[in-house]
Amino acid sequence: MTAALARKIRIGILGASGYTGAEAVRLLARHPNAEIVIMTADSHAGEPYEQVYPHLGGLDLPGLVKVEEVEWAGVEVDVVFCGLPHGTTQEIIAGLLHDTQHSVIDEVMHEGPGDAAAAIQGQPRVIDLSADFRLDSTDTYAEWYGHEHYAPHLQPEAVYGLTEFSRDKLPGARLVACPGCYPTVAILPLAPLLSAGKIAPEDIIIDAKSGVTGAGRSAKTANLFSEVSEGLHAYGIASHRHGPEIEQELSKAYGDNLIVNFTPHLAPMNRGILATSYVRLAGETSVDDLRDCLVERYADEPFVRVVGNGVAPATRHVRGSNHCLIGVFADRLPGRAIVVSVIDNLVKGSSGQAVQNMNIMYGLPETTGLEQEALFP
Amino acid sequence: MTAALARKIRIGILGASGYTGAEAVRLLARHPNAEIVIMTADSHAGEPYEQVYPHLGGLDLPGLVKVEEVEWAGVEVDVVFCGLPHGTTQEIIAGLLHDTQHSVIDEVMHEGPGDAAAAIQGQPRVIDLSADFRLDSTDTYAEWYGHEHYAPHLQPEAVYGLTEFSRDKLPGARLVACPGCYPTVAILPLAPLLSAGKIAPEDIIIDAKSGVTGAGRSAKTANLFSEVSEGLHAYGIASHRHGPEIEQELSKAYGDNLIVNFTPHLAPMNRGILATSYVRLAGETSVDDLRDCLVERYADEPFVRVVGNGVAPATRHVRGSNHCLIGVFADRLPGRAIVVSVIDNLVKGSSGQAVQNMNIMYGLPETTGLEQEALFP
Amino acid sequence: MTAALARKIRIGILGASGYTGAEAVRLLARHPNAEIVIMTADSHAGEPYEQVYPHLGGLDLPGLVKVEEVEWAGVEVDVVFCGLPHGTTQEIIAGLLHDTQHSVIDEVMHEGPGDAAAAIQGQPRVIDLSADFRLDSTDTYAEWYGHEHYAPHLQPEAVYGLTEFSRDKLPGARLVACPGCYPTVAILPLAPLLSAGKIAPEDIIIDAKSGVTGAGRSAKTANLFSEVSEGLHAYGIASHRHGPEIEQELSKAYGDNLIVNFTPHLAPMNRGILATSYVRLAGETSVDDLRDCLVERYADEPFVRVVGNGVAPATRHVRGSNHCLIGVFADRLPGRAIVVSVIDNLVKGSSGQAVQNMNIMYGLPETTGLEQEALFP
Amino acid sequence: MTAALARKIRIGILGASGYTGAEAVRLLARHPNAEIVIMTADSHAGEPYEQVYPHLGGLDLPGLVKVEEVEWAGVEVDVVFCGLPHGTTQEIIAGLLHDTQHSVIDEVMHEGPGDAAAAIQGQPRVIDLSADFRLDSTDTYAEWYGHEHYAPHLQPEAVYGLTEFSRDKLPGARLVACPGCYPTVAILPLAPLLSAGKIAPEDIIIDAKSGVTGAGRSAKTANLFSEVSEGLHAYGIASHRHGPEIEQELSKAYGDNLIVNFTPHLAPMNRGILATSYVRLAGETSVDDLRDCLVERYADEPFVRVVGNGVAPATRHVRGSNHCLIGVFADRLPGRAIVVSVIDNLVKGSSGQAVQNMNIMYGLPETTGLEQEALFP
Repeated sequence: MTAALARKIRIGILGASGYTGAEAVRLLARHPNAEIVIMTADSHAGEPYEQVYPHLGGLDLPGLVKVEEVEWAGVEVDVVFCGLPHGTTQEIIAGLLHDTQHSVIDEVMHEGPGDAAAAIQGQPRVIDLSADFRLDSTDTYAEWYGHEHYAPHLQPEAVYGLTEFSRDKLPGARLVACPGCYPTVAILPLAPLLSAGKIAPEDIIIDAKSGVTGAGRSAKTANLFSEVSEGLHAYGIASHRHGPEIEQELSKAYGDNLIVNFTPHLAPMNRGILATSYVRLAGETSVDDLRDCLVERYADEPFVRVVGNGVAPATRHVRGSNHCLIGVFADRLPGRAIVVSVIDNLVKGSSGQAVQNMNIMYGLPETTGLEQEALFP
Repeated sequence: MTAALARKIRIGILGASGYTGAEAVRLLARHPNAEIVIMTADSHAGEPYEQVYPHLGGLDLPGLVKVEEVEWAGVEVDVVFCGLPHGTTQEIIAGLLHDTQHSVIDEVMHEGPGDAAAAIQGQPRVIDLSADFRLDSTDTYAEWYGHEHYAPHLQPEAVYGLTEFSRDKLPGARLVACPGCYPTVAILPLAPLLSAGKIAPEDIIIDAKSGVTGAGRSAKTANLFSEVSEGLHAYGIASHRHGPEIEQELSKAYGDNLIVNFTPHLAPMNRGILATSYVRLAGETSVDDLRDCLVERYADEPFVRVVGNGVAPATRHVRGSNHCLIGVFADRLPGRAIVVSVIDNLVKGSSGQAVQNMNIMYGLPETTGLEQEALFP
Repeated sequence: MTAALARKIRIGILGASGYTGAEAVRLLARHPNAEIVIMTADSHAGEPYEQVYPHLGGLDLPGLVKVEEVEWAGVEVDVVFCGLPHGTTQEIIAGLLHDTQHSVIDEVMHEGPGDAAAAIQGQPRVIDLSADFRLDSTDTYAEWYGHEHYAPHLQPEAVYGLTEFSRDKLPGARLVACPGCYPTVAILPLAPLLSAGKIAPEDIIIDAKSGVTGAGRSAKTANLFSEVSEGLHAYGIASHRHGPEIEQELSKAYGDNLIVNFTPHLAPMNRGILATSYVRLAGETSVDDLRDCLVERYADEPFVRVVGNGVAPATRHVRGSNHCLIGVFADRLPGRAIVVSVIDNLVKGSSGQAVQNMNIMYGLPETTGLEQEALFP
Repeated sequence: MTAALARKIRIGILGASGYTGAEAVRLLARHPNAEIVIMTADSHAGEPYEQVYPHLGGLDLPGLVKVEEVEWAGVEVDVVFCGLPHGTTQEIIAGLLHDTQHSVIDEVMHEGPGDAAAAIQGQPRVIDLSADFRLDSTDTYAEWYGHEHYAPHLQPEAVYGLTEFSRDKLPGARLVACPGCYPTVAILPLAPLLSAGKIAPEDIIIDAKSGVTGAGRSAKTANLFSEVSEGLHAYGIASHRHGPEIEQELSKAYGDNLIVNFTPHLAPMNRGILATSYVRLAGETSVDDLRDCLVERYADEPFVRVVGNGVAPATRHVRGSNHCLIGVFADRLPGRAIVVSVIDNLVKGSSGQAVQNMNIMYGLPETTGLEQEALFP
């Protein structure tokens, strides 16, 4: 299908100085169908990218400019990866997607992905890495993010980009809201079990452990090496913003509103999230049924793998890769099971999934540019 | 009360080349009422201790001998700290406590701690750091440790040495089984809540995260730096030996047999365990009731502290200290709460608690030799 | 000698929210002759100290106030530990030591430490942890720190507080400038060798590796966990401010001006500095002579230890302790030797040495409050 | 040139359970011209590779067999990557390369790389990752490795595979000895300077800091997480086996025998080596001359980059990539300079360089399969 593209996809990366931005650069710089043409950064504008991220030195990249100084008219950007802070994002994307028309044909594509396609002249498609368009309800957004939604008119068309569950909506999307890292690692194992009625919706407990890159690159005392290394703690207990996002998607899977316990912890590592989910089996369901349900659901997925019986997935098994590994275990408590899932928060939990979405938006093989194995040790 | 001792307590440390042994040395070498007179090690016998543990160089310590070569008759040891592998421990302690008499007067003490005291000539008291005498039922031991109990006649007199719950039994004990690190961090917050009927016994979920020293110093590939750093994983899911130990003590607190979920994880840090316990409130109990119950229970305890509302305890807050910190949080799931507890697995979870027990066995102030603050960063 | 003190030494800690401040609190809170009566912090003023440093929760400490709000007249502080940023320090200390009189009798002491003693009513003695009074030459200070010295009149009386080399000046000092962490680890092994003429002064190369706490607790991107973990780099190459400080003291030891190579590196660990010093043997000197010279020099020192032949000191051997370990090795290059030294940068490299200095200033046993063994692992 | 290959290169990996073996698998599994057909392991023979290295699960790989059970006649292996322990390697390679003929045509290639080519029927070419064929002198080998060389007849034909210096010999080679990780990071910056007469050969000091994967995956107490994390130490001081290897190659570059100081340190990180080399400028050479010399030498190299003036390379800039970064700095000591170089020890320091060599041996573009950017954080 690659041959179907008329030319390389021209890409803008907003917020290229953050970790998710840099990860997008890392992945897209070697993507055979992509070409990075714009990179923005706020305080680093004007610096060569090598100075901001020396590990990406030696690439042929555009210079960093402030986002407000981009001359969109001139650059012909096809897709914008948006890695900006929440709130800000809504305003900037509202500026980019100023037309009211919602459907898309991209001139990159010789043949569109089907009926969903129609043209928007001069406007890029947007793959958003922030939390700004993830929540269907702008009221819920306002409640959890502390301010009203600044682009409520765009929210209805935003596609929640958990790739494995949104494939049919991506080809025609002009605004994709990539899931949070915690929601990705939690929804992938639990949604199929709820859809299939295999687990009870009442007391799902998701104990998650994340590496420090999840907190971004801004200078905060709490994320200093000496504050974080050689120790572990819970944070945002019963109040983390990814909670309502998880509930939204699991509610869809279940078919009715549900509430979950979501308790994040910060672990002294750079990358990786591990979620240990404690679930109650529904009706006569066995633990083997749970495993079978997930194995079947993900049998044809290139990036989700149910590991062997008795194998405990570790974050280091997916470091730097776009994979999600899932393990299923019986509990000592009768009628309960334990589901362990892992991702790299910067890849499948963010920029890798964004590239996966882009591949589908453009009819490319889903794994293009994402074939790297995990880096271990 | 210190003045009541006729002389320093003469101490033997069996298994001084392990991490718990070294931690006992660290604490006892500066204990004003203790004197280390014997140290054993297996493969390191004959080496100066400084070579095994350079951080303890410069202390005036006895040389390392093999445990089978100790001439017990000659050395007049008052207390043995036993940090040997399981199974081995039972046989060696059976050899030490060969007399059938169970009560104790220690000649170190001018005045015994009461009626419980009676003399055992020439036999040391034993503070065991292994798992060999923790389980009341020798059948349960055999089931979980894979071999019959080698000293079943001694099991009935073993005092389970979770200090805060065994103070009245320690003065007369000649065999103290110090709790495992995971049981310590789990029982301290949960036992009072079960005793007081504040939480339901049915589906207690204990998600625990431990540093690597919990695995000891033996050379295993799984504990190499490169296997453990920069990642996190669950292990021993529904099958860890500390599970039945936790259940035994929580059952006592509750007053009836109960089963819990106990899921340990290995985190890339040296010291520390954090347990996140998910509990269901009993009857009309509120989260504030839970907090009040724990605050009251531990008000006079020198080493257990309930932290302020909204504060999340971190393992690094207790690194190197004998403290346990406990935080209580409301859950988003109605009728549930989250209890977070932390200890240093080598101190309160092992050798520090052992010294705390010794202090009580000898009528010393409980905090003697344990006053160090945590080391942070 | 402890009994000679009329009462506890009343202590003020300026900059208690920094790592060196917290380490001073950790050490002094358990010091039998010390009592912390004032603690200042800037942005954290008004918060309970437990909120700033939960690992020190449970201590009975004064509240945090801004340094400019301390009412010095009322509090009767004997000694101020000053852990403020450079520049600021000079102004604040100039305010404290407003009297021109330079000698000291401290009313804490029944009997002064000798003729040096005379009274300064109402003024505390100052133990400074910053770099502000370390350089004898205020011109050199201005050159390396980028601004003129703000208290040049006080510089002449400042005692450079590398304890092992300043014992005779400390009892009468009212202003002690504690050495930097790098200078401490470099000067201890090299000064005796230069004094004794055992090594050539021309091309001393000091390759130093430090943990991250050396950079303090201020929020800088460069010190975030994800920027520092899993990697290593050199910084301040040929331009680090500790270079001239090392040269100043080594020049004194040698008897003439010398220049050294000092190259610091940042390693992914919290505490500890290791210096690998490459030296040329002078004249007929052998490597054994070097070792003998250091063994002899430090034979009676409680905190400096030359380790056995062939033993390589590691930073983890001194973690949390006030020790400096030194190893001496032959080089493959003929006529050269390698000297390896380690300290904990926050203890011997900062607050521990400050307490050691205080002990001497007050005629206390030098090791008081500093007896802890290193914490390993 | 890729099109010139008649088919994929059939690859055997001996010692696939070690870190270098796993890294070879990681790189070759995605190499467009390679096909892994044999993988050996000793204790893990019979296990699926996913069990040994879960991060490489999901690849289509051959099963693990013992090296002595490979039926070489049947499998038609073109190239063997040999990651076995030293000593063992010599015997096994001697078995593989039993024919006395030294030149090569590989049937994979339509057209050979020139006159050097001639056929060896049924024998693979060998790319050795061990130290067994790196030293030209079998006497030196015996002196440093503690036993006689077991395949001295093969030593003369072994090509020292520091790619940037051996390109002309690789196409015709049947035995390539890949350099050690330390030698790679030390020789790349220093050899051109010695060849060009820019630095003095007398007192080159190489202070190197390595991550823990350099020690391999065998279970040793010294490499346990708790022994290595949160600390740093020197080891093998003046006695590390990579010393003579560095000297051999630098002597060739200089044109006469020289001795260097090489002092390795172990840092708490998985991957990466940083070498800080202290050199004396020759004659009238300036530091700029040094930089210019290196810039010119490596201008066309895809994997070696001299970074900008004032930039200090960090190991994390090359994590997971095949790059070597070099920085040049003036020293405060007159007439001296400091050269900092970094590599990933498992990639450019081992398996990546091996693949780079293979690419040249087969006339492929040198960067094939090695295009990944570094993974940061």
